[in-house]
Amino acid sequence: MPNTSALAQAAPFSESERNAVYKAIYTRRDVRDQFLPDPLSDKVLLRLLDAAHHAPSVGFVQPWNFIVIRSSADRERIWQAFRGANDEAAAMFSGERQSTYQSLKLEGIRKAPVNICVTCDRTRGGDVVLGRTHNSSMDLYSTVCAIQNLWLAARAEGVGMGWVSIFHDADLKRILAIPDRIEIVGYLCLGYVDQLYERPELEVKGWNRRTPLEDLIFDGKWQGDP
Amino acid sequence: MPNTSALAQAAPFSESERNAVYKAIYTRRDVRDQFLPDPLSDKVLLRLLDAAHHAPSVGFVQPWNFIVIRSSADRERIWQAFRGANDEAAAMFSGERQSTYQSLKLEGIRKAPVNICVTCDRTRGGDVVLGRTHNSSMDLYSTVCAIQNLWLAARAEGVGMGWVSIFHDADLKRILAIPDRIEIVGYLCLGYVDQLYERPELEVKGWNRRTPLEDLIFDGKWQGDP
Repeated sequence: MPNTSALAQAAPFSESERNAVYKAIYTRRDVRDQFLPDPLSDKVLLRLLDAAHHAPSVGFVQPWNFIVIRSSADRERIWQAFRGANDEAAAMFSGERQSTYQSLKLEGIRKAPVNICVTCDRTRGGDVVLGRTHNSSMDLYSTVCAIQNLWLAARAEGVGMGWVSIFHDADLKRILAIPDRIEIVGYLCLGYVDQLYERPELEVKGWNRRTPLEDLIFDGKWQGDP
Repeated sequence: MPNTSALAQAAPFSESERNAVYKAIYTRRDVRDQFLPDPLSDKVLLRLLDAAHHAPSVGFVQPWNFIVIRSSADRERIWQAFRGANDEAAAMFSGERQSTYQSLKLEGIRKAPVNICVTCDRTRGGDVVLGRTHNSSMDLYSTVCAIQNLWLAARAEGVGMGWVSIFHDADLKRILAIPDRIEIVGYLCLGYVDQLYERPELEVKGWNRRTPLEDLIFDGKWQGDP
């Protein structure tokens, strides 16, 4: 009988394969300053982008694009846009919190040899997209899943990645010629790394603590503050 | 010299470890109908939730909660809410597209032994959150990263997962007693699987095709339709 359903035995994971997936999840870091200057080959970059491209997408519309930025002049212009936004962000904190904020390095735009702007085309798939009729953010969420795939694949390749969110989108759109109808979801910095923080940098530097997992799990219904 | 920076040598991945990460990424599926009735142990479920909890989060605020729903009565009520919304969604397609839509099974709410509603507490971390001042969606995006971590860990554990987005949030909030200020990001169905689609189900069933990756990559700036 021909296999018309395309269903196949699910390939099980060995214990060592399972451990490798958890290793990527637990040792992934938001990298800001540990980038080495070594270039990323097109071959490795394509593997990372193909991993992103195999994320789930609502209605299988694959709404993402990847703008790959290597030119140091372009990265410098984008860094200037970051700096302006970051000065505004710093001003929103006060006292000791502001000093701590200003001591944090929050991006690797100029240090990382490759930057990627990940966008979501909200018109892809037309007006009515399967699975997006009751939650209009599902295409944006699909794009975030692509970014997380890319992040974990990068970790497995020895590549560090940082997500920079401190921008006015209008600045990035102007510099990268992104049309109005396209939404910027993430701006990523990538490069090889040989050192990583053992725990999240914001935890190491005292910005926030990890919440105990058991406080975040509810049984059957919401059990937290109303 | 004491290690005050908490930076450590980044543990490299062997070729087989790297392949395992890609195996999870490439064989992950949105599962709707292949769930086995076998229960998921608390131990496995905790491993999956801990993987989710180790996602990146903006300002390290860890904005997520996980409402674990096992009761079949609750799952039945939630399925009724899905069914109402899905009838509305079907009506938005016409002709052959509508028949195809109606032939698709889009959820495993009653069949999967465990459902998880993943929420984002938008008040966590206070009014000013590091990294969220210029992009207010970053806490929602962090929560999506947690879901994608959970999805890949599930695949490595032999557990299938489906993301159901066809709900009125108000229905889910009423059934699960979720306060107004909390945003629902994803509703997940989980259970063991021994069969999976070789390619995404919506591709197998002719709903959409995979876009060639090269069409989605731009060099230096936006190069698509204006």
